This record gives sequence, C-alpha cells and structure tokens, in this order.
Amino acid sequence: MSTTGRLFGLGVGPGDPELITLKALRHLRAAPVVAHFAARGKAGNALTIIERYLAPEQIVQPLIYPVTTENLPPPFCYETALATFYDESAAIVAAHLDAGRDVAVVCEGDPFLYGSFMYVHDRLADRYETEVTPGVCAMLACASVVGTPLVYRNQTLTVLSGVLPAEELKRRLADTESAAIMKLGSNFAKVRSVIEELGLLDRAHYVERATMGNQRIAPLSSIDPASVPYFAMILVPGARWAA
Amino acid sequence: MSTTGRLFGLGVGPGDPELITLKALRHLRAAPVVAHFAARGKAGNALTIIERYLAPEQIVQPLIYPVTTENLPPPFCYETALATFYDESAAIVAAHLDAGRDVAVVCEGDPFLYGSFMYVHDRLADRYETEVTPGVCAMLACASVVGTPLVYRNQTLTVLSGVLPAEELKRRLADTESAAIMKLGSNFAKVRSVIEELGLLDRAHYVERATMGNQRIAPLSSIDPASVPYFAMILVPGARWAA
Repeated sequence: MSTTGRLFGLGVGPGDPELITLKALRHLRAAPVVAHFAARGKAGNALTIIERYLAPEQIVQPLIYPVTTENLPPPFCYETALATFYDESAAIVAAHLDAGRDVAVVCEGDPFLYGSFMYVHDRLADRYETEVTPGVCAMLACASVVGTPLVYRNQTLTVLSGVLPAEELKRRLADTESAAIMKLGSNFAKVRSVIEELGLLDRAHYVERATMGNQRIAPLSSIDPASVPYFAMILVPGARWAA
Repeated sequence: MSTTGRLFGLGVGPGDPELITLKALRHLRAAPVVAHFAARGKAGNALTIIERYLAPEQIVQPLIYPVTTENLPPPFCYETALATFYDESAAIVAAHLDAGRDVAVVCEGDPFLYGSFMYVHDRLADRYETEVTPGVCAMLACASVVGTPLVYRNQTLTVLSGVLPAEELKRRLADTESAAIMKLGSNFAKVRSVIEELGLLDRAHYVERATMGNQRIAPLSSIDPASVPYFAMILVPGARWAA
C-alpha cells in the first residue's frame, strides 16, 4: 500500500468565498497541507478566498512567483525563470507528498484554465495519486455580474489572452460571435484599441475582480489603462438571439 | 416597496451534486419555487442534480421542451417552436414572481453558457429583480475527469457547437490551440470526421456526462455514433507547455 500523500488541485472559484463548491470545500478541509501561489509580499487571490475555511492545524505552503511580468531586462528570461519556479514548486509539493501528507493546491477560478497549478500537475500527476476538482471560472463570474448571457444557440466563444499581438487579437475577434479576453494589465490599451477598430466598443464590458469585494464594472472607454490589474477581463458577449 | 418575487438563475454544476457552489445551494434552499427545464417524460439533468437538496414545501415547476431536435419535418420550424416555448416559460415564471414568490431556475453547468435560462432571463430581467449565480461548466468538468489542462499560457481556447457545418468546424479547429466541442448527439460523426481530417484524433478526448454516475471517457475512435447523447463533449486540449 502506498504511503505517499495525494495531490488535489482545487478550483476555489472566482473570488466570492461562497462560490466554492461543496466538493472543493470538503477536500480543502481534509487536507493537512494547503499550497497556494502568490506574488512576493502578497497573500494571493486563492488564499484570500479560502482563508476563512482553514483550521489552525493546517499547514499553509506558499509558492511565491519569482517574477510577475513577462517583460524582463536581458539577460533574464521569463520562460526560464518560470520553468525553474515550477520545478521548485513541484519539489516543495512532492516533499509533503513523500512524507505522506495530502496536499491541496488551491486555484483561483478553475485549475485547468490558465492556472499555475497546471505546471505542478504536469510534473507530478504521473508520480502521485492526483484528483482535480473543477471550479467556477472568472469568465462566467464576469458574465453573471454584468448580467449578460455569453453565447446563444450555436455561437462560437473564443477565449483569448491579452498578451497576444494586436494583429492576432484583431483577426480572432473579427471572426467570433463571443469573446472573453483575459490577462489584461499592461495589455489593456492594446486590447481596447483593437476592440475600438473593430467597432465592438458598445458591445464590450470591462470587469475587474468579479464577485470580490472590490469588484469594478465600467464602460471600456472610461478606464484608465494604468489602473488595470492582471485579473481584469473584457467580455464581448454574443448578440442576443431575438426569437 | 415591490411585492414581486425575485428571479434567480442558479448554475448547479455539471452533474455531481457536490459540484454545486455554497451560494447556489443557499439560494436554492431559500426559493419557494424551483423551476427547471426538461424533455417530456424526463426529470432533466438540472433537477436530478439538485433533487436531494429540496424540501417538501418547495414548489417544483417543470418547463417542458416541445421539441428536442433541430431537424423537424416541414411545415414545423424549430426556431418558432422554441421562441413560443420560451415565451410560455417566461410567462409561467412571471406568474410566480407576480404572486410575490421568488423563483430559482436551476441550470446544469452555468446559466449563461448556452443554457435555456438565458432566454427566460432576456424576457424577464428588465421587469424583475434578477440575480445570476455562476456555476462549474461542463467543459471544465470534462477537463478535470480526463486529467488534462485545457489551455496553457497564451493559448487560444475555442468553444464550438457541434451543430456547425463541417467546413466551419474544420476552419475553426485548424486555427485554435485548444477546443471544446459541445452539443454532439447526432452531430458526432461529422465532428469526428473533421477531427480525423485535421490529424487531431490522438489529441482529442471524448467525455460523456462528466462527473455523473454514468460518466464515460473513451477514445474518439471507439465511439459508436448512435450511442452519443447531446450532453457529450469532445476536448482538444492545448499542447503541453514543456518548460
């Protein structure tokens, strides 16, 4: 019988602690070790969401990003820094698993939709018993707080990263009925220009920190680009099916 | 002060009753009327998911689809039949709201991602106080049970309806890093052919009723098209980011 711990990837939802599922909460409460990603000096969204559910005897294991921007001065390389960080994160998690302790890695939104957990998963899932609990993703949280259906009938939905070049964003946005553009931050001004060029400004919604206490919903034109965090999103919902 | 009831659209998750959120469960339990969509003679997935949470005094209000296929013999028109059905459904819900009763419309997955609730929402949201609680969508449930991250880093995710013509499916699948194809049923053979033509068969996963008791995960090539339900999905996850 194996004495190593089990790895749980838990989607804890978009921000409102009440948007965690019963299943994620059960696995969270049962885990002796709760690991979470965060920027240096910050609690991180995932921990903020689930803090209230933790018991004093649970070990909280932070995994601290070495960098938080893709634009590093040479000779530094973002990809290399990240790969090393994920290797180290996986080793930290594996040490708990080897010691027989189950580890719950808490993930804002869903674990398999652009999350850091994916890279730990890919390093450990074939060595340890692994279970992933899906979560409510930010995109659907944004649609709910805006009060707008996202895709009707047989419309196509495209989920895009704001990091993509303007030309690619433009091409893809011009060829879809509905879109969600994530990872805004310093990419916001570029994304907004593209949306304006395509004449989609009136159909687009800007949503920041959906379902959190400091949520902001505003017209795209009113946003100061310098104020846009990474965890903001633009939704371009599908045109309403009139029938 | 208004004496009309409030309309709640509740995402109840993909199938496993434990994948409901705390918030959806709270609204569900507080609602005097629980409405759900279903095919004639069937309980419907949403009701099946939440049945165990209902109290005897809650009114269960079925909304029964008049048709369940888009291919109707002339002179019948699917769009007209659906529009009439949504008008009638909205009227049934509105009657409860006018009588001062809150109504929770339970939605499999999320309320704003291809759900019937959207059409009731669009008919009533400007007349009644309305709140939507997002849910775990089927696509993310499928990724979790397959154990495969869906999109890495800045990959593009395209969510497609299997109802689309083969040429459009082919064009869109050829131009995305990751895809989820929903609404399979009788469209399965067409979709599989397209995936085969594009050489994506090895990367594609077939998942039926993810997280439900009768879940089925199988290689795409092994599936008998006649056995595929509407609530099945094909995932083509993004290529693993190796770093």
